[in-house]
Amino acid sequence: MEGAGMKLGVITSGGDAPGMNPCLAQIIREGQKRGHEIIGFEGGFRGIAENRCRKLSPEEVTLWYQRGGTCIKTGRFPELEKESAQKKVAEQLRAHRIEGLMVLGGDGSFKGALAVHRMFPELNIIGIPCTIDNNVYGSDYTLGFDTALNTQTTYLDGLMDTGESLDGRVFFIETLGAYDGYLAQSTYLMGMAEFAVLDEMPMEEEEIIRKVLQAREEKRSGSIYVMFSESDGKHRCLRIADVIRDRYNINIKCSILGFSQRGNAPTARDRLMASGFADRAIRAMETGVKNQYIVYRKGEFQYMDISNASKKKVFDWHHI
Amino acid sequence: MEGAGMKLGVITSGGDAPGMNPCLAQIIREGQKRGHEIIGFEGGFRGIAENRCRKLSPEEVTLWYQRGGTCIKTGRFPELEKESAQKKVAEQLRAHRIEGLMVLGGDGSFKGALAVHRMFPELNIIGIPCTIDNNVYGSDYTLGFDTALNTQTTYLDGLMDTGESLDGRVFFIETLGAYDGYLAQSTYLMGMAEFAVLDEMPMEEEEIIRKVLQAREEKRSGSIYVMFSESDGKHRCLRIADVIRDRYNINIKCSILGFSQRGNAPTARDRLMASGFADRAIRAMETGVKNQYIVYRKGEFQYMDISNASKKKVFDWHHI
Amino acid sequence: MEGAGMKLGVITSGGDAPGMNPCLAQIIREGQKRGHEIIGFEGGFRGIAENRCRKLSPEEVTLWYQRGGTCIKTGRFPELEKESAQKKVAEQLRAHRIEGLMVLGGDGSFKGALAVHRMFPELNIIGIPCTIDNNVYGSDYTLGFDTALNTQTTYLDGLMDTGESLDGRVFFIETLGAYDGYLAQSTYLMGMAEFAVLDEMPMEEEEIIRKVLQAREEKRSGSIYVMFSESDGKHRCLRIADVIRDRYNINIKCSILGFSQRGNAPTARDRLMASGFADRAIRAMETGVKNQYIVYRKGEFQYMDISNASKKKVFDWHHI
Amino acid sequence: MEGAGMKLGVITSGGDAPGMNPCLAQIIREGQKRGHEIIGFEGGFRGIAENRCRKLSPEEVTLWYQRGGTCIKTGRFPELEKESAQKKVAEQLRAHRIEGLMVLGGDGSFKGALAVHRMFPELNIIGIPCTIDNNVYGSDYTLGFDTALNTQTTYLDGLMDTGESLDGRVFFIETLGAYDGYLAQSTYLMGMAEFAVLDEMPMEEEEIIRKVLQAREEKRSGSIYVMFSESDGKHRCLRIADVIRDRYNINIKCSILGFSQRGNAPTARDRLMASGFADRAIRAMETGVKNQYIVYRKGEFQYMDISNASKKKVFDWHHI
Repeated sequence: MEGAGMKLGVITSGGDAPGMNPCLAQIIREGQKRGHEIIGFEGGFRGIAENRCRKLSPEEVTLWYQRGGTCIKTGRFPELEKESAQKKVAEQLRAHRIEGLMVLGGDGSFKGALAVHRMFPELNIIGIPCTIDNNVYGSDYTLGFDTALNTQTTYLDGLMDTGESLDGRVFFIETLGAYDGYLAQSTYLMGMAEFAVLDEMPMEEEEIIRKVLQAREEKRSGSIYVMFSESDGKHRCLRIADVIRDRYNINIKCSILGFSQRGNAPTARDRLMASGFADRAIRAMETGVKNQYIVYRKGEFQYMDISNASKKKVFDWHHI
Repeated sequence: MEGAGMKLGVITSGGDAPGMNPCLAQIIREGQKRGHEIIGFEGGFRGIAENRCRKLSPEEVTLWYQRGGTCIKTGRFPELEKESAQKKVAEQLRAHRIEGLMVLGGDGSFKGALAVHRMFPELNIIGIPCTIDNNVYGSDYTLGFDTALNTQTTYLDGLMDTGESLDGRVFFIETLGAYDGYLAQSTYLMGMAEFAVLDEMPMEEEEIIRKVLQAREEKRSGSIYVMFSESDGKHRCLRIADVIRDRYNINIKCSILGFSQRGNAPTARDRLMASGFADRAIRAMETGVKNQYIVYRKGEFQYMDISNASKKKVFDWHHI
Repeated sequence: MEGAGMKLGVITSGGDAPGMNPCLAQIIREGQKRGHEIIGFEGGFRGIAENRCRKLSPEEVTLWYQRGGTCIKTGRFPELEKESAQKKVAEQLRAHRIEGLMVLGGDGSFKGALAVHRMFPELNIIGIPCTIDNNVYGSDYTLGFDTALNTQTTYLDGLMDTGESLDGRVFFIETLGAYDGYLAQSTYLMGMAEFAVLDEMPMEEEEIIRKVLQAREEKRSGSIYVMFSESDGKHRCLRIADVIRDRYNINIKCSILGFSQRGNAPTARDRLMASGFADRAIRAMETGVKNQYIVYRKGEFQYMDISNASKKKVFDWHHI
Repeated sequence: MEGAGMKLGVITSGGDAPGMNPCLAQIIREGQKRGHEIIGFEGGFRGIAENRCRKLSPEEVTLWYQRGGTCIKTGRFPELEKESAQKKVAEQLRAHRIEGLMVLGGDGSFKGALAVHRMFPELNIIGIPCTIDNNVYGSDYTLGFDTALNTQTTYLDGLMDTGESLDGRVFFIETLGAYDGYLAQSTYLMGMAEFAVLDEMPMEEEEIIRKVLQAREEKRSGSIYVMFSESDGKHRCLRIADVIRDRYNINIKCSILGFSQRGNAPTARDRLMASGFADRAIRAMETGVKNQYIVYRKGEFQYMDISNASKKKVFDWHHI
């Protein structure tokens, strides 16, 4: 087997996502089976720079399959934009004789990895798209999305118990997703939400208000649920609810789902996909595929050049 | 059996609470077994006034055990403060030859029931304390509290996946509970939250900020979780997070749990307790116990005069 | 719009599957929006024969998105193999002036639908693959699979809490799936199970025993989890556990997941897919696509001639 | 403070139970706050004998609140019946200068602790009742019961989705609980199960069959659910289902819940109770309460002499 017996590094970088842990577990188990040594650096690129690392063993990962977040910690490392930090990271990896680095994160993390690669060209980089936002270019799926979407769905289920015990209420729900609104939109696509407010399809405050009033008018019974994507962190839904209350004396209840949506036990789908991503990452290292990230497209895993990661992914916003 | 073969009415009133449905299911099943006819009025006292009612049958309630909210709808009926509405409700009940009315709700609903009783003195009233706030005087427990507390706990579990994947973060979590902070305080009593901000133990903004900074200082790793009770609906946690960000450049993530906390499938405890409450309500009707609500105290069900319901319940805030 | 304003029937047939309810909800909501009348028959083909039906309205389906099973009941109707029953069903549909029938079920149900079509050739049949077994030919996905797989995964998570609190234990877990083992195999593909026993890859009793003993030998800590696909309903895992206990004095705990795995609130994925299937079913009716079932292949919805439904689907058993 | 600055040992012993971990976490956190050193021995009494121990620190326990099982492992140690093993355990504890030992387990574990105490009379023993069976004499509650009951209830909820999508089916569900049937009985007390088969109220096979047939007769719609307590591990429900199928051609589906019921994230109640038990255990050590276990009776924590632990707890089987 080409490339057998390699020493491979792995980090989780940027925001955590459910699916990171099962993916790590499979990298470690499959890696060991195939004769590789897997070194985990703690807390992303910063952990490499600060040399916080250890050999990961299959014995310790049994419960990682069911845990959200990441057991080797994650974080951002803005210093990596500077050459000095890139060099530091490259030196540490070289000192450990790491032949390849697997980066579990989003496009920002892939970009950082590429910068490190430029300082250490023999180092192979393989990216695994992990983010609840499902916004990595070229991939239909990113690890964590399914869990985050289920968290949101379960949340709405609870809300509906109350909403349908009453009549004619309006609820605003803010989900995570930053400027990428696919999480919020999914609830609309399922048919559970009246509409979703997204950055990708900007909506004026007055239009939102008009749509809420119209939905109230049309609804004979039950309540109305409107999703808001997180956007700029200013909780726009609260402001609009205030306007509607002041102007029409309608009391709208707002929920801000917040960072609970980034955690929770990975769903079965995130575990299955994690296994698929881990498998392809190790094979890429073995077969000499270089500086790619793994994408899942039209039901198949493929490789994509890491330079594409910064492009904007576009969804079909109107249908699944 | 004294009182066998009665015609009994039942309503859910005020805010919905998980546990209402299994309690209704048991009232209907046990009621029928013991020879009573159970009439459900839809949407609380307003439903009585508007004569929206039907006979409830054991066949339809199988899935009610697992459903949050209330399958016979609930709501407030502020008009009940006026004598005219009280008379209207009393007349409807009299017209249906209802001998006793079971009211599932909180102290406000019990007070309303008493007002109706004054207009229709032959009508027996039995209250069953249902509210996630656990704030009914004289009872260690109110239906729905356990489910709401589990929802909150599960929420925090998800948040901690992220919080412990990072280091030194601060999270504010606003729970329901209005002016009654036992939900928020419970997370502190469990040991999961640093502290809880409650109306019952007022805390100045500066004190809260000081406690947050101190906790950050002391914590060697991991993150910090602070609970806020809902209070006046003004989302105080958001304001304080803004102050801390502006003053100390610390980015605090806020979650507002919102009305999802009122829903969700009743826990096992809420179903067991629902069964206990239902049983005592029917027995009270049969044995002629009059105008009481049922309390759970020191591990036993007891009756308490409905006039006590407006008193303020006091917790041991420091220990369970 | 071609075909606008149609009268369409819908049934759920065969075993229930989570995802049926959200799919019904979307058929009803989208159907009404597009001007169609949707008639639901209760309990599958038998319900058509016995004329148990009603018009379904968007108002009643809000909570169907979150409910497992099927709100219009399902069942088998073996009599449909006979011409007399086929005629009966066809006559009822004709009497109701149903122009198209949407059948939510597996390949057996599609076959039944085709038989009815032969008796009533103007009737258009569209199948939507619903079964937790994910075994419908030509489709990468069937509604319900994701929920059933999550139920199984959550179950195993609970088991692992105990398994990892002890050392060196062996657990056998029997999942649903009948003769189709993809549910059981998925846990192996995720990396959580040592191996899976499937009809598709027959394994002698002695081979199973040998693999268990070997896994125990190799494992330094933790416990061992083996999945068994349901197969012939004879609970093979119990028999093998008995042999191992008698022969080697090793106490193996068996769990039989059973029919709980068919229920539970549909996952987000099953709701999203339900919406996609519902959308294509209605469009098929409108555009005159005839006697097809909808498949999801390589990330896209397509139509497939209903005569293919009886073919055997083959998985990649070794990788996801 | 009397007894401040003690060196205290802690073990989890016997079967694991959800609630052990949060209880450990609180013992460690509260212990440290109050100046004590907490030493954890791994795997129960055997871990003491084999000297597998470490100092537990508050930093590592943040996620223990949400984890089922026990993070310091558990197990049985039958050798402890012999004096030689008792001496070995006592010597190790003495060598570590342990002043008090907290034992999280059931009555068997308490008995073992007492035996150790006889060999090392200065050692104080405090028991905390942890078992999903809720069968510890003198206590209304044991840690883990609520979680196990919720697991069972959630399981039944899933089953009912299927059961109510069909009509007239019969389901047998075997729960854990060994010879203590309160778990199985609770589902009957809630009103969800037709009846429960328990060791405490023995029922002949023919009587069970008769009750099943009668329930089928009476039920106009829906399905029938019968709980079986685990008992002798021989899966009696399977045998009876076979008899009914052979004799009456009724196909009964059986589920064997198994060891998944021992795991899962502790419920809010188990976390709150864990905190209460931990608090009393540490106070007992500080104030010199000797060789007691902590019970929860009529809504209050109390101490009970450890010699009572072997008595049989009796439930009110007919009411909650």
